[in-house]
Amino acid sequence: MNGAESLIRTAAAAGVEVCFANPGTTEMPLVAALDACDGIRAVLGLFEGVCTGAADGYARMSGKPALTLLHLGPGFANGIANLHNARRARSPVVNLIGDHATWHAGADAPLASDIVSLARPVSGWIRSVRSAKAVAADTAEAVAAAGGFPGQVATLIIPSDCQWDPAEGAAKPIASAPLPKPSDTAIRRVAETLRAGERIGFLLGAAALTEQGLNAVARIAAKVDCRLICETFPARIERGAGLPALERLPYFPEQAIEALSALDSIVLAGAKSPVAFFGYARMPSSLVPEGRKVVTLSEPADDTVAALEALAEAIGAPRAVALPSKPVRPNRPTGKLNAATVGAALAALMPENAIIMDEAATTGLPFFGASAGAPRHSYMALTGGAIGQGLPCATGAAVACPDRRVIAFQADGSGMYTQQSFWTQAREQLNVTTLLCNNRSYRILQVELARAGITEPGRKAKSLTDLSNPDLDWTRLARSMGVPGVRVEDSESLCRELERALAVPGPNLIELML
Amino acid sequence: MNGAESLIRTAAAAGVEVCFANPGTTEMPLVAALDACDGIRAVLGLFEGVCTGAADGYARMSGKPALTLLHLGPGFANGIANLHNARRARSPVVNLIGDHATWHAGADAPLASDIVSLARPVSGWIRSVRSAKAVAADTAEAVAAAGGFPGQVATLIIPSDCQWDPAEGAAKPIASAPLPKPSDTAIRRVAETLRAGERIGFLLGAAALTEQGLNAVARIAAKVDCRLICETFPARIERGAGLPALERLPYFPEQAIEALSALDSIVLAGAKSPVAFFGYARMPSSLVPEGRKVVTLSEPADDTVAALEALAEAIGAPRAVALPSKPVRPNRPTGKLNAATVGAALAALMPENAIIMDEAATTGLPFFGASAGAPRHSYMALTGGAIGQGLPCATGAAVACPDRRVIAFQADGSGMYTQQSFWTQAREQLNVTTLLCNNRSYRILQVELARAGITEPGRKAKSLTDLSNPDLDWTRLARSMGVPGVRVEDSESLCRELERALAVPGPNLIELML
Repeated sequence: MNGAESLIRTAAAAGVEVCFANPGTTEMPLVAALDACDGIRAVLGLFEGVCTGAADGYARMSGKPALTLLHLGPGFANGIANLHNARRARSPVVNLIGDHATWHAGADAPLASDIVSLARPVSGWIRSVRSAKAVAADTAEAVAAAGGFPGQVATLIIPSDCQWDPAEGAAKPIASAPLPKPSDTAIRRVAETLRAGERIGFLLGAAALTEQGLNAVARIAAKVDCRLICETFPARIERGAGLPALERLPYFPEQAIEALSALDSIVLAGAKSPVAFFGYARMPSSLVPEGRKVVTLSEPADDTVAALEALAEAIGAPRAVALPSKPVRPNRPTGKLNAATVGAALAALMPENAIIMDEAATTGLPFFGASAGAPRHSYMALTGGAIGQGLPCATGAAVACPDRRVIAFQADGSGMYTQQSFWTQAREQLNVTTLLCNNRSYRILQVELARAGITEPGRKAKSLTDLSNPDLDWTRLARSMGVPGVRVEDSESLCRELERALAVPGPNLIELML
Repeated sequence: MNGAESLIRTAAAAGVEVCFANPGTTEMPLVAALDACDGIRAVLGLFEGVCTGAADGYARMSGKPALTLLHLGPGFANGIANLHNARRARSPVVNLIGDHATWHAGADAPLASDIVSLARPVSGWIRSVRSAKAVAADTAEAVAAAGGFPGQVATLIIPSDCQWDPAEGAAKPIASAPLPKPSDTAIRRVAETLRAGERIGFLLGAAALTEQGLNAVARIAAKVDCRLICETFPARIERGAGLPALERLPYFPEQAIEALSALDSIVLAGAKSPVAFFGYARMPSSLVPEGRKVVTLSEPADDTVAALEALAEAIGAPRAVALPSKPVRPNRPTGKLNAATVGAALAALMPENAIIMDEAATTGLPFFGASAGAPRHSYMALTGGAIGQGLPCATGAAVACPDRRVIAFQADGSGMYTQQSFWTQAREQLNVTTLLCNNRSYRILQVELARAGITEPGRKAKSLTDLSNPDLDWTRLARSMGVPGVRVEDSESLCRELERALAVPGPNLIELML
């Protein structure tokens, strides 16, 4: 057995089931090793950002790490943006990066670069393998370091000779470090805050947004009067009939501050104290209105479910709460396509257990409210702001959940970054329906220009925020990679085509002309 | 005047003419500033790898730096792979990266990351701006640091408040440091080597491959018997009738070592001592056969033209050499499409002064030999091995040289990385003809698998090196972004369509079914 095979066997023994790969020459022994072991499915992406985003989506939906297989520094670099999102989502991911043979490292060959410097900003754990015999133990540690949900990105750099040289066999799985336990002091302090009868809001993130977390939240909310707010860009939130409906913290700082200003205290459960997405002149960094108390129940990486359940006990909340389990959907919209009608159409028609990957940017906003009472579904947002997450993340979610329909609710500007995802969806025949919102602009940047005081942009500023001239033809683009699609121009056609698309297996696309 | 405007005006005063941009919120003042100043053309790329690769291609053809405009760490990260190629090409590039406002940096907002750690592996010069008043001077230094050819990648990180806060005006241009002068000792030592009557080969790179450099090389070769070999992946080489025809150092180490083994001494002119592209088991890192002498005339970053001219003088070479100026082209090929017929077709039909960007990988090999006596042309190779250079680099070359025809000779696997380039070509109506070699595989990886001893790859290894299922439809893909294309299946159709494509302005594509 060589080092590569010891790696793959170790990962499989630790429960890893998928490898999202875009390999090169320095990964050939690992490519061959995938065939030597039955346990790990190999999924090819035609660009590394597809692989890392898919690993993120897979992790969000399965709670388990996938492998990525990437080619030296530049190949890894192509995957950084979506690893940035994975880091913010606290998704477990294990990156395997092939590197030059140890004895070739000093030659400064064309593809040589400082991989560790590239990897550090997105990796919670990094190791460069030193020998083939060390690969197995390093792999077991990498998978353990990645953990579950919440977890982290672990990066293992494997020189090619450490892949092809002889090794001693696979290593046993190592248990991940348990999530930090809830703090009794924190639970007591929050319980006191709740009893004080102030105006309370919970800001919920990470594991507070799982089914278990939300059930505990529902118990707490049945006992005390409080607002339930989720962070603006959750990694994943379970939603719909039977679960408490949450407000969403608004994106722009002035709106977020206003939303929080009706509170006396903000309880953080799996969330960090909220900050502005961007700094704006004459606006604060923190979104906490002046004079408000912030009390932390749990940090994002903590065992927030346990913290919420302990809090529910501490305040004597009911054991279980029955929330309305009959879905309430909006009517099918009619007329022009716009953010409101698109959101309503999706909320009206998405099947039970749908997975919504929302990178629809400005077009996506109304959907969240419209779908609060819809049938149960999972919702994923763009966690790190690195656009190009949507299509890959939807791809990985569909690999994780072959029995659920994934809907990639996608803006055009960000979709262009990683549209190679369509090809992987077609090859793997994944159940992904893409709703591509073609508004022919970086609309959010036009808003941001105005916010920066540039209300009459000049010719160049206009051209840099405009996606027309030429118009993108997304139906043709998807079809070039094997995904069939149609274009719609009004709500009636959208509803008709959406019903049709959701009923057939495999990937498809609806291009919405906004 | 704010910091952003002082930056753009400083860059324009220093001779910068183009900005390849994919901006976000933290770059809005810079976007607006582009309109406040006439001198700099703004070119939008729909993915950052397009922008950085275009800046590289622009620099190779113009000898001047372009700006890139990129959005924080993740946006920059998307451009790293092509900056890696630019670094290996020693292309001058000035990256502008917007960052969070200085007072927002501590908030760890979603898009925050360690930009310096990401930028260091590809940047010869990095600076984080500290205040709006410092922006202009920092910009002048960045442009000077980038230099000309050979130059380097300079990265300037500009917090958004340093863009919008008031500044004092533009800064005066700063002269770049002059290239290191040729060393008299080195010239004397090489002259002695040449006089010793040994079997000599010049390994030529960087400025040795410019017209001036090659004219000096021709003088030397007229005086002494020597082989002229260019590095395997030159940033740019001037070729064709009237210039000395060069051998090319083979890619695989065993072939390269064999090619050099007929020499006693290797003279390095603008090239590093050759090393293997990858380390292979039982192969050395260095490509210099045992016992051979290596003599350095000049390093890649030196003033190699001056060194070659001084050497020509030192050995009493003729003042000028008249090489055959009548082009010799291969015949138009007929029959099946393969690497040989495609190379012959391109060499037979490319117009005088064409710019060939060769990222055709395995399909590209025969072209170099077939085109040695063709009309004068510039040839660019994949310098750093980070695939996805071809289409962006061709795009930037066409911006630099609007009066020349650019031919993107492109493999399918690498083309997929940055095919968003087609959109920029269409918007800017650039004279780029893409010859897309569709062989439905990562053919080089299939070769590498065999070299690694995996002669009968398993199902997963096959699937990870295969681009079929589904087949990519490049004609449709290019058309979805506004570039017209046709598909050809034999040499006769290729020749007919190539003639037609080269005769019309604007971008087009020919998809070669191999």
